[in-house]
This record gives sequence, C-alpha cells and structure tokens, in this order.
Amino acid sequence: MKTSAISCKDVKILDGFWKERQKINRNVTLGAVYNRFDDMGKIEAFWCTWRPADGDGKKPYLFWDSDIAKWIEGASYILMHEKNEEIEKKIDYMVAGLEKNMTQDGYFNMYYNLFGLAERFTDRNNHELYCAGHHMEAACAYFEATGKDTYLNLMSRFADLIYKIFVEEESAYFVTPGHPEIELALIKLYRTTGNKKYLDLCSFFIEKRSNNDKDKPLFNDPLYALDNVKIREAKYAEGHCVRLNYLMSGVCDLAYETQDKELLDACKRVFDNATKKRMYITGGQGSTYMGERYTSDWHLPNKTAYAETCASISLGMYARRLELCETNSYYGDIMERTLYNNTLSGVSLDGDSFFYENPLEIRNEDYAVKFYDFIRAGHYIPRVRQKMFGCSCCPPNIVRTVAGIGNYIYSYSAEEDIIFVNQFISSSYKKDGKSVCLSTEFPKNGKISVKAEGFKKIAVRIPYYCKHPEISAEYTVENGYAFIEVGAKLDVEIDLCLKARFVYANTNIYDNIGRVAVMYGPCVYCAETADNESVENFFADTNAKIEVTDGKYGVPGIVISGERQISSDDIYSEEPPKKIAGNLKMIPYFAFANRGEQEMLTYFPIK
Amino acid sequence: MKTSAISCKDVKILDGFWKERQKINRNVTLGAVYNRFDDMGKIEAFWCTWRPADGDGKKPYLFWDSDIAKWIEGASYILMHEKNEEIEKKIDYMVAGLEKNMTQDGYFNMYYNLFGLAERFTDRNNHELYCAGHHMEAACAYFEATGKDTYLNLMSRFADLIYKIFVEEESAYFVTPGHPEIELALIKLYRTTGNKKYLDLCSFFIEKRSNNDKDKPLFNDPLYALDNVKIREAKYAEGHCVRLNYLMSGVCDLAYETQDKELLDACKRVFDNATKKRMYITGGQGSTYMGERYTSDWHLPNKTAYAETCASISLGMYARRLELCETNSYYGDIMERTLYNNTLSGVSLDGDSFFYENPLEIRNEDYAVKFYDFIRAGHYIPRVRQKMFGCSCCPPNIVRTVAGIGNYIYSYSAEEDIIFVNQFISSSYKKDGKSVCLSTEFPKNGKISVKAEGFKKIAVRIPYYCKHPEISAEYTVENGYAFIEVGAKLDVEIDLCLKARFVYANTNIYDNIGRVAVMYGPCVYCAETADNESVENFFADTNAKIEVTDGKYGVPGIVISGERQISSDDIYSEEPPKKIAGNLKMIPYFAFANRGEQEMLTYFPIK
Repeated sequence: MKTSAISCKDVKILDGFWKERQKINRNVTLGAVYNRFDDMGKIEAFWCTWRPADGDGKKPYLFWDSDIAKWIEGASYILMHEKNEEIEKKIDYMVAGLEKNMTQDGYFNMYYNLFGLAERFTDRNNHELYCAGHHMEAACAYFEATGKDTYLNLMSRFADLIYKIFVEEESAYFVTPGHPEIELALIKLYRTTGNKKYLDLCSFFIEKRSNNDKDKPLFNDPLYALDNVKIREAKYAEGHCVRLNYLMSGVCDLAYETQDKELLDACKRVFDNATKKRMYITGGQGSTYMGERYTSDWHLPNKTAYAETCASISLGMYARRLELCETNSYYGDIMERTLYNNTLSGVSLDGDSFFYENPLEIRNEDYAVKFYDFIRAGHYIPRVRQKMFGCSCCPPNIVRTVAGIGNYIYSYSAEEDIIFVNQFISSSYKKDGKSVCLSTEFPKNGKISVKAEGFKKIAVRIPYYCKHPEISAEYTVENGYAFIEVGAKLDVEIDLCLKARFVYANTNIYDNIGRVAVMYGPCVYCAETADNESVENFFADTNAKIEVTDGKYGVPGIVISGERQISSDDIYSEEPPKKIAGNLKMIPYFAFANRGEQEMLTYFPIK
Repeated sequence: MKTSAISCKDVKILDGFWKERQKINRNVTLGAVYNRFDDMGKIEAFWCTWRPADGDGKKPYLFWDSDIAKWIEGASYILMHEKNEEIEKKIDYMVAGLEKNMTQDGYFNMYYNLFGLAERFTDRNNHELYCAGHHMEAACAYFEATGKDTYLNLMSRFADLIYKIFVEEESAYFVTPGHPEIELALIKLYRTTGNKKYLDLCSFFIEKRSNNDKDKPLFNDPLYALDNVKIREAKYAEGHCVRLNYLMSGVCDLAYETQDKELLDACKRVFDNATKKRMYITGGQGSTYMGERYTSDWHLPNKTAYAETCASISLGMYARRLELCETNSYYGDIMERTLYNNTLSGVSLDGDSFFYENPLEIRNEDYAVKFYDFIRAGHYIPRVRQKMFGCSCCPPNIVRTVAGIGNYIYSYSAEEDIIFVNQFISSSYKKDGKSVCLSTEFPKNGKISVKAEGFKKIAVRIPYYCKHPEISAEYTVENGYAFIEVGAKLDVEIDLCLKARFVYANTNIYDNIGRVAVMYGPCVYCAETADNESVENFFADTNAKIEVTDGKYGVPGIVISGERQISSDDIYSEEPPKKIAGNLKMIPYFAFANRGEQEMLTYFPIK
C-alpha cells in the first residue's frame, strides 16, 4: 500500500530515548558542527571572500556547499519546533551571501564561484550537482520551518539553470552527476514548489544514467559511480555506498510520484542485494575504504569495515522511501537497524565528536604496526571519535537525521484512512481532527502505549525479532504490520517482548564463521576492554541464558556467559588451551569508544 | 657443547626428499634464476658496460651484486659435487668483469662503479656492505669448490679497503651497515683466509652498532635496522627480519670464534623472542609488508603475513649458528621448521617460480576488492609464484640453501669425538677414517638408519614432536639429543614415530583463537580448494583420528574429519547454522599454490 510521508514538522517528539538524543543534538552537536565549520571557513565561503592571503586552511573546497547545507537542513528541523532567532540569523547570513554571489543566470558553488566559473559543469566528479541538491534540500526545509522563501527561490533558479544546461542546451561536459543526490532533492523541490519541471529533471538524470554517450565512468571504473547499468535494469548494490543509496532514494521518490512499477522493482532488487548480502549486522555498508564502497556479496570484514556513517543514514533514507511505496515491515526493520547501530555510533554520547567509519572490531595491536612512524600497515580508523574531518559529510548528516527523526515515524494512507507506525518513538501527531500518540521507553523495552483517534485503522510494524507481540486489542497481521481498528478512540498497549538473543551471520561471511553476535531489540551489542579484562578470547555459551541488566545508555546492559581459553606460554603446542568459565559484559554497539581507546569486538567465537 | 660445522663439500646427499629437491634445484632453478638475471642485465653488470642508451630495463640497481652473488654461492655448492665447466665459465666471466672494474684501491659495486664512485659509502641504506658481504660469501664458496682464488683475492682486497675506510680512516659517512650481512661474511672470509683482520672488522661492525655518534637510524626509525640497542644488550627481535637474522647470525659467528658469552647470551635472548613470540607456525617471520618486519609479540596475522622466504632462510642460518655454539635440540627444531615449511614454500614444486611472501591464508574475495582497477584494499601477495621479482633476493637464496643443504646436517665435537646428526637427510660424511651415513625417507616417515664408524659417540637430535623415539641401541638423552656409543661400528635403526597431530597456537595470537592447525613431523599442513569444495567453513573435530594417506609431495597426505556449518540464506539469523559432517583433505604447506590460484587455509575452527 502506498502511503504518504508525515513531516517531522507535524510530529512532536515527547520523551524517551530520542528526546534525549535530540536534546544533545540541539544543545551540543548543532553548535559544535557550526563552530567547526566556521573555523574551517565554510560560513564565510557563502560570501566568496576568500583570497590567497587568507591561507590554504580556509580555501573553499569542492564539496563544502553540501556540508553546510546538511547543517542548515538539520537546523531547520529544529526551527520547526522552536523559534530561535540566533539560528535563523546564522542561516539568513549564509543565504544573503549566496544571494549576493549567485550568478545572474542562477549558479552558485563556493568553489567554482571563486576558482573559475568557466569550468563549471566540466568535471563529472566535482560534486556540483551533489552540492546543488543539498542546497535544495536545505532550502525546502528552511522554507517549511520559517516560511522564508529567499533560499528556496534561489535554489529554484539554480534548478532552472541546471534544467536549461543539462536538458535543453546539453552544454555541460557530462549528462548525469558523478555524485548523485540531486535526484532526491529535485523531488523535494518539486513537492515544495509544485513545479513539475523539477520532477522532469530528476527523471532525466535517472533515465540518462548509463544511457548516454557522453558520461565517462569515474576513475575508469563503471561500478564506482553506478555507470554500469541502466537504472531500470539494476540488480546489485555496487560502487560508492553513499552515492548508490542517495541515487536509489531518488529513484524511489520518482517511482513513488510516477507510479512507475519497473523503476520501483529496480529499487527493490538493489535494496535486497544491499541489505541481504552486503550489509553489516549494524546496518553498516561499505566493505572497504578504497572507494568507500560495496565490494561483493558476503564480503564483510569486521576489522576493516568502512561502514561510513553517511552510508548507514542514506540506507535508512532508501528504506524509508520504499516503505512509503509499499507496506512491508522489512523496510522499517532496516531503517531501525541503521538508526540504532551504525547511525548512532557515528556520534559520541556527549554529541561532540564523530566517527566517519564504524568498524565492528578494534584491536590495539593493529595500530602498533607502523613504518616511518606514521604509515600504518592497513587502513584503520581513529580509535576515538574526532571533532571533525577534512571530508566532513558525516557530522552534519547526524545533525539533520537526529533533528529530523520525526520524519521516519509515521505514514498515512488517505485512501484507507490508516495511520502507520513505523518506528517506536515517543511522539504525537495531530492534524485535521486525527491524532496518534506513542508513549514508549523503546528500545529499553518493547512496551508501547498507543492512543489514536480519527483514523479508521492504525497499523503498527511488528519488527522481525518479535515473533509473538502482546497487543491489548484485536488485530490482524499483514505484510509485517498489526492492523487495529481505531473505532471512536483507541487506547492500546503493545509489548514487543524484547529479548536478548544470539544472532548468527550467514556462513558465507568469512569473518563470522564459528562466531556469534548478541542483539537486544534492534540493538547490536559489543564488548569493550573497559568492561572486560579481555574481549578477544571469550567463547560464548550459546546454550546459556543471556543476562539482561540495567544499562547506562538508555538500553539494558547484557552479560553473556561462556569461557576464556588460555594456553600455556608455548607459542605452538599439542595441548589445547585451558578453558576457564567466565562472563562477558556487553554494551550497545552505538555506545562503543566513548571511554578512550580500547579494544572492541562484536562477534565472539562459540564455546 | 661447542661443535664444528661440517661443510656441504664433505657431505654427500644420497637419496630421498632432499635429493629430489636438489635435482630440481640443479636442473631447473639454477638455470632459471641465471637466465632471468641475465635478462635483467645482472650478468653484464659485472662489466659496468651499461649506458643510458641501453634503457632503464637493464640499469644496475643498488642491491644487484647481492642477488647474483647468492647465485654464485649456490652454484659453487653444486660444483663441490659436480665438475661443470659451463657453470665455471659463467662464474669466471663474472669474476673477470669484477676484476677489470674493481678500483685500484679495491672497491666494487655494480651501481656505484657506474653511477658515482665519489658517493660510495655515503648512504647507510644503500646496501654496499651487504653487497660486499654476499660477494665475500660467494668468493669463499667458489674457492672451496674449485680452488680458484681470483674472486677470493678480489674480495679480500675489498675487505681490506673496508677495514681501512671504516676502522682506520673512519672516512665513510656511516659506521655500521644499514643492511647487515657483511658480519657473517667476514667470519667466513676469516675462516677461509685465516686473516684475523676480517674477524676484527666483523667485531667492529657489531660492537659499534647503536654505539657511535655518526649512524642515523634508517627512515628515522631506530627499530627498523636494529639501531635501538647495543647488540650486547639486545633482548627483542625487532625491525626488518632479514636484516636482524643476518646480523645476529654474524653475532653468533663472532661469539663462536671469540668465546664471548655475553654476545652469545644476547643471540639467545633475541632468538628466543624471535621464535617463541614472533614466529609463524611455518617458521615464517615478518608480520607486515611495511618494512618487511617484526612487529610485536603475538602479532601474527595469517592473511597479511609477510613471512618472506629470505626471512625463513636467514632464521635457519641463525639457528644453525646457535646449534654450533651449544648443544640444544631447539635450534635444529627451528632450522627444520623453517626448511620444511616457509623456506620450501618459497619455490614451486617444479623449481621454476617463487614466492617472496608466504602467507598462511589466501581468500579470493580479498583480491576482488580493487579501486582504479589496480589498487587493492590491502597488501596481498600474488596467489601463484612468480618467475622473478624486481627485488630478487629470494630466488637465489633458495638456490644456495637447497644446493647447500648438506651444510645443515652434521656437526662435530673434536674434544669429545662426537658426531651430531641435526637434520634427517639421507647423506654420508667420511673423513680421516671417520664416517657416518644416514638413510631415511624423512619426512615421509620417521625411520632413520644410521651407520657410523670411527667416532666415540653419535648424537641424534630428537625433535620436539617425538616424545618416545624407538632406537635399536642403548642411548641417553641430553639437551634433546640421543647420545649413542659408536663402538667398533654402529648400525642403528631409529624411528621418530611421526604422527599427524593437531597443533594449537598460543591464545595471545588473535587470528588463531578457537582454531587449530595440523602437522605431521616437521611439516605444517594446509587445505586448498583444489582438494576441497570449500576450506573456509570447515570445523575440525580434534577428538577424531587424523587419517594419514599416501601423499604426492614426498610426505603423506592428510584427511581430517569434522563438520561444515551451513546457514540458511538469511544474512543474519537467530537460527544457528546447520552442521554437516565432512572431511578436509590437506597437503603440506610447502606445496600450496602449485595448482593455480585458489583459496588456502592453515588454521581451522574447532568443532
């Protein structure tokens, strides 16, 4: 069943897990990211005032627009629920710079405006359309939040110019963007402005992809930026993860708007490949830093996982869009998996630092291997989160995702008058005499109180790990959702009966053969040396009960029992190691590396 | 007990495993390496005739002397048992070029003679003393084989020059070599010529190491080329493995000659660290390609093992020298471990191609990860042996090690009149009315027939894996050797009762936790996809009997039983994988990768 999105503007987050995260996002992360961007010169860059005398430290770079635009989008989601002149003043200042420096024909890019407008749209890999897309997303959000339309109008002009250059004149040196993103942004612009030209432009970029004589594959690699196959025929999740996920999100949007079943089928095929053969248990994607990309089915190394925060966020966006195209709890399951694991792990618990990459294993000995005192024998991420990155897409992506979490909770079928509950977040939605309110401590436990009024039915996603939900009302299950009649007024208690459980990876995933992971509800757990003498030689007893304790991070703590294997001092021996019974204390994966550098493991050998 | 080496010149290899390897080495490898060196220009380089018009392909490089000198040394070992004018002609041609181009003061180096004698001895990392050392070794061997002394005299002149420049004038820009090797070569030159100056020069290089104001650590890393500690105080096997092993071999030689207990203790400490905490089960060393080096205790990753062929060979040389300094079967055990595993794996079964690196695990999926179509996401070796390498130390090192295998079998205590049998190789030694003869199919089985005459006692190493040797004579065991009275004439049957066995790595070695390897006698076994549907998800039943079959490679084949774990199609599931009973066919590690590219594993998870 096709459903409509419900904007975070209309959804109030009430309390619980996400309210806490939003507070930190609002009070710490928002300002921290802004200040660091300011230090880097990304705010002033709107005014195109950089000169060589200012030094290379603040010299605008190709994808700066996209970083700060994601921040504006996130700030706008906050403004939807909070009047804040300070934030608006900041954004208005940037928009004023953009307005002043936009060319007469409607072009703006922090890099090209300074370093050569003559070369605009000549290099397919230079992120111009990606930057434009993020500005469009931000402009729509800021307009929705404040009603101010300057930014939106500027971006509409930019979109008009892009249409002219790419569709009418065909004067750019390429046909489709090297880094997709503008596709989904154009749909947003179309929905906000009602201008069908933007829908057509989106369609143009999607249909022309791998379907023109002009585009050259980036890095001579047709897989890298999805230049290997026409979108309608796509089967596999290939290449740069974030590029693919953004692109396919746009394709979903287009299929949604145009009811194009062939396009939707392509989206579903690729999503299935991405999530059923190329996804870490954390919802992470990207098996190598080389090209930040998908590799091959089942190739999911733990220690050298790339699993970029933005890849997880964009997979969630892709899932959300499929969820709106048709009712299937699988999409909400994947959205949830990304959110509570690889996405949240991208930011520290205090909201002040970030992971770009989110591996499933950290071992100190790998970091000790150096040459020339600085070259590592492999690619290993910093063991603690960083304040910022040179390529700083992830921090503002966290800002907008947490601020806009309300975008992912509900959807609505007007035809059937059914309100869908996709994510379990304490929140309320009220409009036109209809209302729904969720109250829950999820993911601490699975109890959800739902009140609803004015709808015919409510449909609540029953997540894959809940085999026997307890629901204090009559219900039927279809496509993984429990459908309940609302009647005059519904007041229902649902318990998803969350349990800690052992999870086995497919035996085609080499690193996890003979190993087991632990989950509770949607959360993957891990063990750190901060809580355990060692994490590397613990063998889990999968027949023993998992102990669920009070936890520190808004979810329970977990203790599993098993044994440690300790050998003699011999380097090699015919004697098997001694087995010593012991326990392992675990924390949610999203909370790892918040206590300094240490070893971390998510998969454990089985006793 | 200090014993004397017995030269391979006096040892005849009779039949069995090593006779076969020597045939291949003589008939295939010797010529193949020569021809490829010739193609690269390394033969003509003795004549210093290269000019820019000849193209960069044949432009002499810094360490070319060492490559071809190792070949001459190996060819000389062959000449000790075979009159061959063709080989002598080749060597004499090279020596003539060297003689013609040696400077009046006695200097020769293929690179510096052509590109700037003014810069000789100015760069500590440029391998001049390393090259000189290999020439000295080769010259001694060629003299011993043929009695021709031109090369030896040239190298004595070179050594005299080095003494003058380094000891008397102190006019070089450095004090000790960046790449050690000359230390052990000087001892060889001292023993061959009787000129004590060379012993003193060796002592100078060893005592001055990390003990002077002039030497700068290579790559600013004091660990890299053993610049971190005075040799007498050394405790750890650090830095570039081959450099360390050659250096410490020279230190052993010096300690042997000078009866310097402090130096010998340093050798033993470093050897213990190298072999008890930093050695692969194959005798391989070097845990990373970055600097081809030792890393830290227990850091021995399987897949990215460097385990250079030369590191294994040089560890064997180090072990042999300790074995001569004092009687302890541990040294012969290590020599044996290197020989039958990491050293032999360095050459293909047909003798025509080579591994520089010898990993313990090869997985095809790692090779599929590429960027720009040529950059790999990690450092992985070619999956099949190569004809040659740009840095081609390993192939001629194989030539000299196999040709000179007779150097490693016997040693002799004149004081006690005891002949020591250190390695089990069918061979005979006869001199001055004394003789010993071994007849064995080892390592196919452990049966060894030993005949001896003229000695007071014979001492046979009882390897660590033989708990209960069967010996058809009275014997006592001391320091791991069985001592047997020879009497008028000894004819004894020994059975080391070789058994296939499971071997567990120390649980500090992360990659092998919960895993087990299989050995038979000295040989590590591995499994390849050529013999098995898959090798990656086989769980060994360590309680089941290991089946020993007829083997193809001069050693038995092995089949272990256990189970394969096969999951459902789900990427992640609460259902544990199904367990299906099955077998795994194994071959000796030294024979891996002789049947094209395939997956290989040495450690298996335990059922």
